[in-house]
Amino acid sequence: MAISTKPPSGMRDYLPADLARRNHVVGIVREVYQRYGFVPLETPAIENLEILLGKYGEDEKLVYRLLHRGEVLQRALAEPSSLSADALSDQALRYDLTVPLARVVAQYGELPKYFKRYQIQPVWRADRPGKGRFREFYQCDVDITGTESQLAEAEVCAAACDVLDRLGFDDYTLCVNHRALLRGVIRAAGIDPAQEGTALQAVDKLAKIGRDAVIAELVERGIAAQAGVRLIDLIDRPADETDAARFDATASALTDDEARAALSGLRELFALLAVTSAGRRARFDPSLARGLGYYTGPIFEIQVADLAGSLAGGGRYDELVGIFGKRRVPAVGLSLGLERILVVMGERGMYPPLAIGPELMLCWLDVEPAAVLAVAAKLRAQGLRVEVFPEAAKLGRQLQYADAPGVGAPWCGILGKDELARGELTLKHLASGDQTAVAVDRVAAHLTSS
Amino acid sequence: MAISTKPPSGMRDYLPADLARRNHVVGIVREVYQRYGFVPLETPAIENLEILLGKYGEDEKLVYRLLHRGEVLQRALAEPSSLSADALSDQALRYDLTVPLARVVAQYGELPKYFKRYQIQPVWRADRPGKGRFREFYQCDVDITGTESQLAEAEVCAAACDVLDRLGFDDYTLCVNHRALLRGVIRAAGIDPAQEGTALQAVDKLAKIGRDAVIAELVERGIAAQAGVRLIDLIDRPADETDAARFDATASALTDDEARAALSGLRELFALLAVTSAGRRARFDPSLARGLGYYTGPIFEIQVADLAGSLAGGGRYDELVGIFGKRRVPAVGLSLGLERILVVMGERGMYPPLAIGPELMLCWLDVEPAAVLAVAAKLRAQGLRVEVFPEAAKLGRQLQYADAPGVGAPWCGILGKDELARGELTLKHLASGDQTAVAVDRVAAHLTSS
Repeated sequence: MAISTKPPSGMRDYLPADLARRNHVVGIVREVYQRYGFVPLETPAIENLEILLGKYGEDEKLVYRLLHRGEVLQRALAEPSSLSADALSDQALRYDLTVPLARVVAQYGELPKYFKRYQIQPVWRADRPGKGRFREFYQCDVDITGTESQLAEAEVCAAACDVLDRLGFDDYTLCVNHRALLRGVIRAAGIDPAQEGTALQAVDKLAKIGRDAVIAELVERGIAAQAGVRLIDLIDRPADETDAARFDATASALTDDEARAALSGLRELFALLAVTSAGRRARFDPSLARGLGYYTGPIFEIQVADLAGSLAGGGRYDELVGIFGKRRVPAVGLSLGLERILVVMGERGMYPPLAIGPELMLCWLDVEPAAVLAVAAKLRAQGLRVEVFPEAAKLGRQLQYADAPGVGAPWCGILGKDELARGELTLKHLASGDQTAVAVDRVAAHLTSS
Repeated sequence: MAISTKPPSGMRDYLPADLARRNHVVGIVREVYQRYGFVPLETPAIENLEILLGKYGEDEKLVYRLLHRGEVLQRALAEPSSLSADALSDQALRYDLTVPLARVVAQYGELPKYFKRYQIQPVWRADRPGKGRFREFYQCDVDITGTESQLAEAEVCAAACDVLDRLGFDDYTLCVNHRALLRGVIRAAGIDPAQEGTALQAVDKLAKIGRDAVIAELVERGIAAQAGVRLIDLIDRPADETDAARFDATASALTDDEARAALSGLRELFALLAVTSAGRRARFDPSLARGLGYYTGPIFEIQVADLAGSLAGGGRYDELVGIFGKRRVPAVGLSLGLERILVVMGERGMYPPLAIGPELMLCWLDVEPAAVLAVAAKLRAQGLRVEVFPEAAKLGRQLQYADAPGVGAPWCGILGKDELARGELTLKHLASGDQTAVAVDRVAAHLTSS
């Protein structure tokens, strides 16, 4: 039976043209993040399972676990009566970049008090694959730990919006809400505080399944229909309502001081965002819930009309680091979903022309291979990206190959006996067919001026 | 019980200063590889198990397997009598970058005939951790598929040596041997051809355990002591012997044409290498075996005196792609071990000064946070890497923080009421203490000229 050579379901091979696009986007993400003063961090793909468990709510079942090996596995298998995933595994693949950051902040006392880190790495989730949704995908996170100042919220939002602006997006929305405010609205709707968590899980699906289905799910989760309807009326606002009107409407419904404080904080955050690149993108969305369990303050999501799901998400999580260490360390962050950005940019044709592959294919005939390599070394020392045709072949075949899809060298440098004797190459521009003899030492200068 | 916040055994967190060093090295690797005309490829961290099995010889036990999830796991657990690693898992983590490349070449017919790809990604091996040996580590591979021309061998070796030269290494050795030649020497020593594979496994340990231990291991593996001694005498050559003398000595011992052809090919390869950056590094090492099962032709290893194990390894593997597809596709490649390079460079102090973090810390007092963010946006638009002090605090504390370990901003920009009114910053150079007022719009120009 033939072995399938496809990558596993929900995962992709990035061929060179794919990577040219991805590297273009990652380069801009990194440059913008660094301008905001963020420094890089990378963590292992593998985390001890106890670090991950209890952090992702209902999605925890999507975590990829590693099977024990060797003697540990044999010991587990020797007791088949107690076999379970927990007995067979104590490590798992990274599920997001936030929990590893919290672990790192708890572990390394030498980090700066205000640790502004960016992290661009893949994460793995055994989710059902869909448009822009993969089982291996890159996140591009910025987080600021160590402060409760909303300057931090404003900075992570502005950095993400700057990235999208630089990439050419002009129609996205930064939806903003506040976890404590949402909980206050849930209470104001007459829902028991003990049911806040389960209500939040249902509300999180509003954009996906619509208000009637959410109300039905709230009832299923044991919440009175009347309270459910009241909640949805409070958070599912008319599309044309201004943020000011939404703030006022929400404020008038609140019943306790904690929620009022959250609302007032959110108004201040909007005033900060107004002077940044996030200003014209920010929108108060009282229905925004974010599924993850660890958020405690403002929450964010960046959306575009032509993609279900979001381009980015994040929020404040002041208690997560404290779970891992003795110190409470407040934190806020935002994660750009690289794959979704790539998918939308591809569909919209937003990529600039991107050069991949060699600038020059060195073609040769009637000379020794060692002479070819010596010339290639001289060309590369000039900074040129040079491919050497690897076999003795007719010149026509070599030129044809240089121009083939996936190779795409714009220039050929032809090295024959005469050229070698004179220390020259015959440079051929493939698109125009123009040919000219150039001294080997002057090829880079010639290509730059052409 | 407190949860450990250390990374898993054998794995590391890369803090910003670590990443500055790693990104420095990776940047040079990528630039050199591209100059040689290699194009990038990335493959998923997860591979279907059947792709990996049977490719790595005795090291296969080091492969990390993923545990089944959900219903598939439940079905497996329901039959405890037949439980095994194979019943619990059908995916695994990438173990090297060569097998995934072979899968990719078999899968995508649209790739160029001579596919010159580079790939810089982590791999995972459940090996015992040691100096420069981790369970998660990056490989930087270059491979050329589609040709049997030894120009390809020469190109991958030259690219790797160029990388090491650019990084500042000046004392490494590129050890070169040939699998078919080594097998011929094994036969010439009087060892049964059926025992070539097992003899090769023992020979692979020569550098690590020494000649007597290898001879003992050969005997354990069922090889006559006399043949074992003869083999070791043929391959364990005096350190001061020239390559020419080694070639001659080996040639005179060979007993069959296949091995003689391999030796003659190797001589030709050395003539090619001589005109490249690999020329003065190459050394014929008739004892070099390389553990992996898939090599068929020349094999390489790059060594330095102060590291057990190698900085790089590779070779020709003409049959691997064919295992996955209908077509036989010859291939040769070389893999640089990033972690080992980093370890040696660190011990030798080979890194240049590397800037990490912000160029300027924006400190502020008696102004509104929104005004601070507006100034930060103007500075970043000039291309500066700017961190904003996130909280209202005494100026002394802010300046002190900017200078703290791990922050290291060389400049502070102080924004007070007066500066804001005049559209200026007071720029303070932390090392000298010099202060000067500069228009906000001219800060980048001022820092460049300072």
